Formats: sequence, C-alpha cells, structure tokens
Amino acid sequence: MTAVADRPTASSPASCLVCRNCGAQYPLGAQHACFECFGPLEIGYDDAALARVTRADVEAGPHSIWRYAGLLPVGQSPETRVDSGTGMTPLIRADRLADELGFTAPVWIKDDSANPTHSFKDRVVSVAITAARELGFERIACASTGNLANSVAAHAARIGMPSIVFVPSDLEPAKIIQTAIYGGTLVGIEGSYDDVNRLCSQLAEEDEFENTGFVNVNVRPYYAEGSKTLGFEVAEQLGWRVPGQYVAPMASGSMLTKIHKAFKELVTAGLVPSSTWTVFGAQSAGCSPIATAFSSGSDTVLPVKPTGIAKSLNIGNPADGPYALDAVRSTGGAMAAVSDDEIREGIRLLARTTGVFAETAGGVTVAVLKKLVAEGRIDTSVETVVFNTGDGLKTIDAVTGARPTAVIPPTLKGMRDAGLL
Amino acid sequence: MTAVADRPTASSPASCLVCRNCGAQYPLGAQHACFECFGPLEIGYDDAALARVTRADVEAGPHSIWRYAGLLPVGQSPETRVDSGTGMTPLIRADRLADELGFTAPVWIKDDSANPTHSFKDRVVSVAITAARELGFERIACASTGNLANSVAAHAARIGMPSIVFVPSDLEPAKIIQTAIYGGTLVGIEGSYDDVNRLCSQLAEEDEFENTGFVNVNVRPYYAEGSKTLGFEVAEQLGWRVPGQYVAPMASGSMLTKIHKAFKELVTAGLVPSSTWTVFGAQSAGCSPIATAFSSGSDTVLPVKPTGIAKSLNIGNPADGPYALDAVRSTGGAMAAVSDDEIREGIRLLARTTGVFAETAGGVTVAVLKKLVAEGRIDTSVETVVFNTGDGLKTIDAVTGARPTAVIPPTLKGMRDAGLL
Repeated sequence: MTAVADRPTASSPASCLVCRNCGAQYPLGAQHACFECFGPLEIGYDDAALARVTRADVEAGPHSIWRYAGLLPVGQSPETRVDSGTGMTPLIRADRLADELGFTAPVWIKDDSANPTHSFKDRVVSVAITAARELGFERIACASTGNLANSVAAHAARIGMPSIVFVPSDLEPAKIIQTAIYGGTLVGIEGSYDDVNRLCSQLAEEDEFENTGFVNVNVRPYYAEGSKTLGFEVAEQLGWRVPGQYVAPMASGSMLTKIHKAFKELVTAGLVPSSTWTVFGAQSAGCSPIATAFSSGSDTVLPVKPTGIAKSLNIGNPADGPYALDAVRSTGGAMAAVSDDEIREGIRLLARTTGVFAETAGGVTVAVLKKLVAEGRIDTSVETVVFNTGDGLKTIDAVTGARPTAVIPPTLKGMRDAGLL
Repeated sequence: MTAVADRPTASSPASCLVCRNCGAQYPLGAQHACFECFGPLEIGYDDAALARVTRADVEAGPHSIWRYAGLLPVGQSPETRVDSGTGMTPLIRADRLADELGFTAPVWIKDDSANPTHSFKDRVVSVAITAARELGFERIACASTGNLANSVAAHAARIGMPSIVFVPSDLEPAKIIQTAIYGGTLVGIEGSYDDVNRLCSQLAEEDEFENTGFVNVNVRPYYAEGSKTLGFEVAEQLGWRVPGQYVAPMASGSMLTKIHKAFKELVTAGLVPSSTWTVFGAQSAGCSPIATAFSSGSDTVLPVKPTGIAKSLNIGNPADGPYALDAVRSTGGAMAAVSDDEIREGIRLLARTTGVFAETAGGVTVAVLKKLVAEGRIDTSVETVVFNTGDGLKTIDAVTGARPTAVIPPTLKGMRDAGLL
C-alpha cells in the first residue's frame, strides 16, 4: 500500500527558477530577477514530474485551482494551501454572442468574475500567499490596479496574515472600499500604477520589509504561475483539449502568456492531445503599448502614460510585453486596442447575450473580439475562448447610462401611461 | 440494462401543490394561492420518490444546484434545466470569527456572494425559470428589492427570454445598473417593495401578462423551492449531516423556512442521520415585522413601513412571516433585529475575520449572531452555520467610510512621513 504522502503529486514538480531572457537557472526561492542579465525569472519544472500527473488525479481533487497542484510550484500538501475556493469558474457557451458576431464555431466565455473577490487575481494570490508562507514571509503586500488589492486583502484577512496594499489613489471607489473593508493597511499612491510598482520594488529592498512578500515583486515567479490554472480549467472543461483560439486582455501581459504556457504544459504532461492554437491579445486605446508594438512590427514595447476607463489594464510599462508579443506572433494571432466607447459597448454586448456583467477589462476583450472579426483577423470557423477577468460591479461608473426603461407610480394606470400595458 | 431516462431521478418527485394554511391539494401548475382559503401553496413531494435519491446520485451530478434535481420539482432532465452554474458556493470555516465571538464550536459561513449574480437569488431564479419554461410561459418577470432583479435579468439574457423586472425606484445604484445592463425591460416603481409586489399581483391577472411567469407570484411555489438547495449544500459540504444551529436573514421569511424544510427532507430521504437543529432569524431594526412578532410572543405579523440600509430585506408585509416564526419557535431558536450601525459593523467584522465582503443583509445576519451571543440566546458550544446571501459590492454606499490608511506620494520619503517605514 502506498501512503498518500508518498505519491508523486505530493512533492512539487518545480525544479528551479529560470531566466526568461538568458535561460540561467537558480534554486527555488524568493528571487525574481536574473543575477546575470536582470531578466525576469519564472518557475522551471521537471517534465517527468509533470508527466506523472493524470486526469484522474486532477478530477479527484478539490473543485478549485488546487486540483492542479501537481502542475503548480507549491500547495502539493493540502494543509499548506491557501484555498479560498478560487477557480473552476464557469465556462459558458455563448451561442447568442457567437451568432451576433457571425461565428460558425462555438464561442465560450471563461467567467472569472465568479472567483471569491470576483477577478482572476484570486488565482495568482492563492498561489502567491501559499508560496509566501512556505518561503517564511510574515506579511503580504502588492502593487495593484485594484483587483489584486481586493484579492490580497481578502486572502490575508481569511488566514489572519498582516497585509499592506499599494494602489493608485484615483482608483474606482468600489475597488478602494473592497480593499479597505478587510482591515489591512491600504496605501493610496499619488501616481500611476507604474509609480506604485516602482515604489514597491524599492520597498522590497528595505530592511523594514524583509519579512514581507510582495506577491508581484519578490514572489512574482510563483504568483504568475497561478494564471496557468485558467488554461488548465478551460482544457478540462472542454473535455481535456485545447481550444483553437483564445482572446485575453493584457495589462502586464503575464496572464496571456501563462495561459499559453499552461496549454503547452498540458501537452507535455500528456493530459491533452497535441494540437495548435492561436493567441489574441486585447488592450484599451488608452493604454496599448503591447498592441502598438504588435501593429508596428516591433519587438520593443515602448512605455506609455495610461489613460481611459479600463483601469485594471492601465500598466504603461508592461513587464511581460515582449513575451506576450512572442506568444501571439508565434501562433499566428493578432492584437488590437479599442476605445472607451467600444469598451462600454463590449460590456453591454456581453451582458445582453450571455448574462455576464464584466468589468471594463472584459469589455475590452469582447470589443477586441468584435473588432478582430470585423477586420477579418480572427477565424470565425474556429472554436474560441474569451477570458472575462473581472466583475462589472467594480467598474459601475463605466456604465452609469444603464437606467430603468421607465419610472412609474405603482398602478395599472402608470403601466398604461408608460406604454407597458 | 436500465436506460438513464428510466432511472427514478429522471422523473419529478413533486406530486402536487399543497396549501400551507389548510392542507388542500391541487395538481402541479402555475397556481400560487389556495382556492379554499387563499393560503399560499407549496410543492408537495412523494416521500417514496425522495427516499430513492442516494448520496451517490447527488455526488455524480453537476457542481451546481442541479445535483439536487432529485429533490426539486423540475429539471430532472438536464436539457430542461437553466443552469447558470449557480450553487455549490463555498462553506467557509470561520475560526477567526468564532474566536472573536467566543464560540467554542465551529462557525461556518455559507457564502452565496459566489453565485453568478452574487446573491442567493440565483438559486430560486434557476428553478423558477426552468419551471416557467416547462409551464409554457414566454416571458419572465418579478417584483424585487434588487438582487432578484439582477438574477432574473441575467438569467433571461443567458437563455434569450424576454424579461420585465419591477423594482422600487430608490434602490442602490449598483442593483439598478446590474439589472439594466442585460437589456431587458426594467421598471422603477415610485413606492416600496410592498407596492411593487402588489402591482405585480395585479399584473399577473391581466390578459397582456398571460404569457408571463412572475417568478415570485404565479411561479412562486417552484421558485421558493430553490432556496432548499442552500440547506442541501450545507449538509453535503459538512459530510452529509445537519448542523446544530443556523442563522438566516429574513425578508419575506421564505428562505429561512426552506432551509428548515430542506433539512427535514434530507432526513426523510435518508440522506442524513436524524438529528435536531435550532433556527435563528435575523432582521434589521428598520424592517423587523417578524422579529417584532417573535419578541412579543405573537403569531401575527403586523405590516410595517420599511426604513434603513438593508434594502434587500425591506419587505414590510412578509408573506412567509408566520412560517418563519413557526420554524424558529418549534426548534427553540430566537430572532433579533439590529440597527444600521450594527449592520455596518457586522459587514466589517465578517470581512476582517473571514475575507468575505457581504452586502447589508449579510451584515444584518452577522450582527444578529453577535447580538444573540451577547444576550446568551445562542449556544456557543454548538456548531453554527451563518448564511451570507449577497455581495458587498452591491451595497457599497453602506461602507463608504472604508478608506485608505494613508495617501502619499510614490517615494520612500512619503512612506516615512506617513509612519509606514
């Protein structure tokens, strides 16, 4: 008889940190930049360990991202996990949206507004806080455009860990309140997200923050892996196969690349048949450094000063921009950017055809999908997954034009006068 | 070999409509009041059919309320269900809340903010729209304090069914927008929920609304059954047993009584061991007709004019008040009402100890729990489940006092000046 603790999935398949720029390898730990070339580090895996994970292992796991622990760097032992019930969000077949856009193949919405704090950030935070505890940090921190702040503060409250969260002070009120409510320290920064991020990188080097894991700075290699679970879930929910196309929003560009990485790892692990897929990236016109580089055929992402209503995507100097460009170009995909008005219309289009109320980032993604179809740059005969990463309730000011059809007295006469009876 | 369609769970266990007042029975259909005594009707079941449902049947079902189709009046065939992914929301062990309140037994939060439109109403709407389609209705409608409006409009958009939703025109902006965004007809009524409800009862009798299922009027017996899934899930998530105590908010009083009914049906079906449990009801001081009747020892619930911030509970003339009184009194429980300030403190207490951001109704429930403990009316040595039925993002105005700890320039000096470094 084999004890559960002896099973291969009980040890981490992660083997090292590897530089995405020069390929240098380092031991696993709280390091995020290469000592050789200052390039970003990501988690390297033992392919043989990935290949030992079976569909049955996954399906026997919890109904959360932790069912994929065998493909993540931490959380193999259930007692080490911070499990907030994140993940296994609905994959919704959007036939009415497909019809309206002229798709002949199925279109699916992967709806991450169903996560505990209603964005995909719960995935990366669950993994990052689990890693931070294992790495010995006693406080958790982040730089955020809002959703990450919500998630870090909520997860910290859940497990009783102190938190300190940094956000631009001009964020949407709902995101400010949903962070402050959990009782951690919340610092508004007079500046852009890029200013916030720069400050956090400095703080991570200060003695007073030695005990602090910044989820998207010194814990970033672990953090970023959490986004892979979006890809894992889509493949499992489709019956263990990779869709032919996907469209994802881009802020730092990390999530789009990690979904791509997830699909490749599923093939490596033998969990899905080998196939090809095409990657599409979405930005808002107010902050489109990656999409602009794509359009100009450049490999260099030039920083911009963000504007516009899609605040959760407003990263002017996107760390993973070059890697997002590579994922899209290497698969024959495309990128596009859309205006604030197109974003609002994207939110409404998704809501009225699927019943999903997305935040501005979701509006960006749907509007880009529509634009790519109109421009003939996406194949409407190929099955497509669209990632909605956040919740409309957090960016309600974007759609304040959504009002009652009529306001009437509580009488049949009132109904008749309004033409409703 | 037995075909799936021949299995007992493929036919409805519902056998009739039964008057909760006089016990008269009617055939299943779109009827909600007794012809004999005008009492409210509910679904009657064939106990033998319930007893044929096994734990294995349930566990093999989808990860949604429809895993309990064998215990619901409709949706036995998967293709008839409106499945929005509602249900199987997290049951969160709230050790930090338990400690703070002085519980020695576990306290659990059943968090229905995880449903698609972030309230428990997705449960009743999923069942009601499934029933409405089976009953031949072509349009769906409701009277709502907000959450039901969100859910009806979203479900209608999902399946492409026309909807007409009636709400008090002074609702929270987030609830208005989250209904209007889906593109159905939304009618704001200048009056209270009770005025809205009265108008809908009238409209249900009009020829122009003959094709319209009002989920909480003429489809109400089906609709109300959806709340039972809260009880089913709690029992399954606890390992197939009923907790010793639960605390639920009361608007019409229906949900509290249906959780009680669910536990009784689970015992009848042999799915849980026979046990006793105690029921506690929570209202806001601004609208406490049921709690007031409880305190005065009366069986009669006197209508009130609602005030206060817990708008989703503001039903001044609660249809199920007498049945809620009976469920609480017959189990030896209690009721209490809390002020707006206590509600705000309840929201904060839950958020900082569990990471769950509840709407005002959740604040009511947690504040009542706290009050019942302080008054020695709930046994802190008995395992307790607390129902959070909605999401803090919808009632954000209630906690606008939640602000950043500090707002500073993006510099280390800014951090030092604020005492954060």
